[in-house]
Amino acid sequence: MAGAIDLNSDMGEGFGAYRLGDDAALLDVVTSANVACGFHAGDPRVMGGLVALAREKGVAVGAHPGFADLVGFGRREIAVTAEEVATDVLYQIGALAAFCRAAGVPLRHVKLHGALYNRLMLDEPLAAAAAGAIASFDGGLIVVGLPGSALERAALAAGLPCAREAFPDRAYTPDGTLASRRLPGALITDPAEVARRAVRMAREGRVGTIDGGEIALAADTLCIHGDTPNAVELARAVRAALDVDGIAILPLAEVLERRRAGGA
Amino acid sequence: MAGAIDLNSDMGEGFGAYRLGDDAALLDVVTSANVACGFHAGDPRVMGGLVALAREKGVAVGAHPGFADLVGFGRREIAVTAEEVATDVLYQIGALAAFCRAAGVPLRHVKLHGALYNRLMLDEPLAAAAAGAIASFDGGLIVVGLPGSALERAALAAGLPCAREAFPDRAYTPDGTLASRRLPGALITDPAEVARRAVRMAREGRVGTIDGGEIALAADTLCIHGDTPNAVELARAVRAALDVDGIAILPLAEVLERRRAGGA
Amino acid sequence: MAGAIDLNSDMGEGFGAYRLGDDAALLDVVTSANVACGFHAGDPRVMGGLVALAREKGVAVGAHPGFADLVGFGRREIAVTAEEVATDVLYQIGALAAFCRAAGVPLRHVKLHGALYNRLMLDEPLAAAAAGAIASFDGGLIVVGLPGSALERAALAAGLPCAREAFPDRAYTPDGTLASRRLPGALITDPAEVARRAVRMAREGRVGTIDGGEIALAADTLCIHGDTPNAVELARAVRAALDVDGIAILPLAEVLERRRAGGA
Amino acid sequence: MAGAIDLNSDMGEGFGAYRLGDDAALLDVVTSANVACGFHAGDPRVMGGLVALAREKGVAVGAHPGFADLVGFGRREIAVTAEEVATDVLYQIGALAAFCRAAGVPLRHVKLHGALYNRLMLDEPLAAAAAGAIASFDGGLIVVGLPGSALERAALAAGLPCAREAFPDRAYTPDGTLASRRLPGALITDPAEVARRAVRMAREGRVGTIDGGEIALAADTLCIHGDTPNAVELARAVRAALDVDGIAILPLAEVLERRRAGGA
Repeated sequence: MAGAIDLNSDMGEGFGAYRLGDDAALLDVVTSANVACGFHAGDPRVMGGLVALAREKGVAVGAHPGFADLVGFGRREIAVTAEEVATDVLYQIGALAAFCRAAGVPLRHVKLHGALYNRLMLDEPLAAAAAGAIASFDGGLIVVGLPGSALERAALAAGLPCAREAFPDRAYTPDGTLASRRLPGALITDPAEVARRAVRMAREGRVGTIDGGEIALAADTLCIHGDTPNAVELARAVRAALDVDGIAILPLAEVLERRRAGGA
Repeated sequence: MAGAIDLNSDMGEGFGAYRLGDDAALLDVVTSANVACGFHAGDPRVMGGLVALAREKGVAVGAHPGFADLVGFGRREIAVTAEEVATDVLYQIGALAAFCRAAGVPLRHVKLHGALYNRLMLDEPLAAAAAGAIASFDGGLIVVGLPGSALERAALAAGLPCAREAFPDRAYTPDGTLASRRLPGALITDPAEVARRAVRMAREGRVGTIDGGEIALAADTLCIHGDTPNAVELARAVRAALDVDGIAILPLAEVLERRRAGGA
Repeated sequence: MAGAIDLNSDMGEGFGAYRLGDDAALLDVVTSANVACGFHAGDPRVMGGLVALAREKGVAVGAHPGFADLVGFGRREIAVTAEEVATDVLYQIGALAAFCRAAGVPLRHVKLHGALYNRLMLDEPLAAAAAGAIASFDGGLIVVGLPGSALERAALAAGLPCAREAFPDRAYTPDGTLASRRLPGALITDPAEVARRAVRMAREGRVGTIDGGEIALAADTLCIHGDTPNAVELARAVRAALDVDGIAILPLAEVLERRRAGGA
Repeated sequence: MAGAIDLNSDMGEGFGAYRLGDDAALLDVVTSANVACGFHAGDPRVMGGLVALAREKGVAVGAHPGFADLVGFGRREIAVTAEEVATDVLYQIGALAAFCRAAGVPLRHVKLHGALYNRLMLDEPLAAAAAGAIASFDGGLIVVGLPGSALERAALAAGLPCAREAFPDRAYTPDGTLASRRLPGALITDPAEVARRAVRMAREGRVGTIDGGEIALAADTLCIHGDTPNAVELARAVRAALDVDGIAILPLAEVLERRRAGGA
């Protein structure tokens, strides 16, 4: 019983004349694409092009909604209301879903972006607003987030399937949260090390912490960052190591199905 | 055989702190609401609020996509490509459709806005791009436009149902196009006169022209402008006159159904 | 010695097809116009038109920079860096200054908007960034803010002249801060009462607090809100009451000059 | 008498998280930087950073205003009014001028961007609007454009100094206009060939045409594109060839001064 894991990556984060990341190369590696929806990045051409490419490569498509802050790339927290979160998320999911529908591709999951992702890991009312919006659109959409987060609780309460995300290139604290990017060692850039951590996460559900210890960390999907300089190299290293180790790399829906079937 | 007609109005054209028009009052008069989708006007809060209100009042909801030009309110032509038209229209329809889906309201029609509406009455390739995008999303969406326009031809070619729109408050030229707003007499502001023209359009399919003549003008729906100073008064005058004349005021889908049943 | 006071109002907060407030009427009442600069509201046409009108009416022009958040009207705090505050403020001041220069009108003051105003009353590093940006553009620009605020300290440290602002239509707490808008009685809407408070502020430098007490409150300028339903009526009531009381209503620069001359 | 020429390049065309072109490398080659002002590209951080870098490298700074169309990168014509052109140009010049003023760098010139540049080469009323806006801000700003264009005429009529621009990497038609980018051979990508053409333009004021002929072409400044794949290589080749040929590469103001002194 080697286990199974999904690999997800944020994509479609270009805009107009701007390109960001090598989506085509990443689509050869990951099983789930989180597609930016035009608020923090992405535009209708980028979205349409990426959905078509994901279909061609057999990669599952999900929405990647963020704060309405193009100049800040969705990385700056905005003091939004619950209504603003709900309606902004619904709008963005709908926009992407149209490209999926036109291309005959199912929309599978939702992963929030940047500062909105971080905020909804902790903020119960806003997490409930987002989960409500997602459920009102499609109760079968898989919500990707940190295990034990406010968003996970809200999504489960709304009856939505949840996928637990882990970050092989990020250091963890002993309490299972991500170590601040500003701490030395918080970002792991060596592909071999990231690959080792990915295998450990997928096979044993454990990860080493920034203080040298180790914690349990259940993961259904591993985040592969696409905007780091060596993103593609790193992604390939992770995939290769998982393959060597006999871990099945499967779309999120199948990973969750296996978990259910296996009782995990 | 008194005939039937739909009344449509552009709505949801506020943005953020800004309000425009009296949507609540117009929803008591019209049978179809064309809801702005965030590109030329509208934002996710406005869209969600309007869809809820339209459901409450039993008014059919349609998308009202425009150019991505908030500061120009979608009234300035932009030299877009066919791909840009297709993807911008698809994005906007999808965004609004999400609010409809969340509210359990069907999305019924698409009416383009402002400079995009005008451009697609004449431009065959762009009309084909828009029609293709609409059909790829939902082949049952009714396309609202001028009879004899490029968009009507493209929509019919794409297998989409079409509704012919007329403007009781706008003067027509002898060849059936709208007289330029800059001409004296091009805008009719007297409610009684607008109401008389609306009845004539709905009952007889005819309208007086700016040069004193008269032409045939098939109409399935009459546009009720919401952004003129006396918009609500004018809308009520039109509705009252149609009622008095025994013309059924029905949602677009039912008007088209009657046409099909009646062979018109 | 009746004293002197400036009356300021936020203006030019329309955008594209949207109008907000009655700027023309307010310009007959106030002595300083805080002109929105296109980030939270305002566009180049609105800015140019308002500068021309202010010149015609002899009202002093100031910049009113806000967060880059049109849909939130600059009322939502954004987690910006000091560099973002400095560059966003500088950009907006420069844009407005161009219209002033073209119209031969001096740019006199800077008053931040909404959530940026509130944030910089408390946040020392961001206040220093804004003050540095203002001083780098023109060391003679008067910075309008709450007395005792972080922005006032930063502006003074940067060598900028400062004007202390008071709000006759807002209730104060015993420690001299504004009572939260959510508290009952926080917003005073009766024109007579607002006018009485304005006179008290201007003549005696005192104001009644929300708990029935009274505090000292030095004020060089009174804020006249333009976006409340009875804004113009209220503005006229304040001006009339000040006139009756013999308080000179003067542009900010002259009020500050009198303060300096009088040693206050 | 070897002649003198300016080399200009469009810069600062990143936005938020997006980067475009290698501004730092180009600043080592060119003598004039056309800095995007936030409408088609650029943001306040990019603008401030580029002005600082240009000061450090001794490169003259100019404004590069474009249509308000970030998603279209200012390359799509928008049906603007003269008032819109005047106010959009004034706003953008002012915003950049603030960064210049803060950095103690003079703003030297204005070169319009993309579709606005092209439109104002031909459209007399819009060219007059832009020239009027520039002159109202600073009558000493050098207007960069095609010789014989509507903008050149309007700028001269407004009393503004004008610089005639040529494009060594673009093919010309026999009537002296740029050959459409869609024609084969319209874009010249071989650095040696571009460099040869640049020398010919600078020394003899002549250029070969797309049909094999040759025309006279007066040039004060050569445009070095920064967004082509081999932009920096090409820029260096041009500079090296001009150096070898003994042509002085000088800022625009000095080139124009030499022309005036030399009677050309």
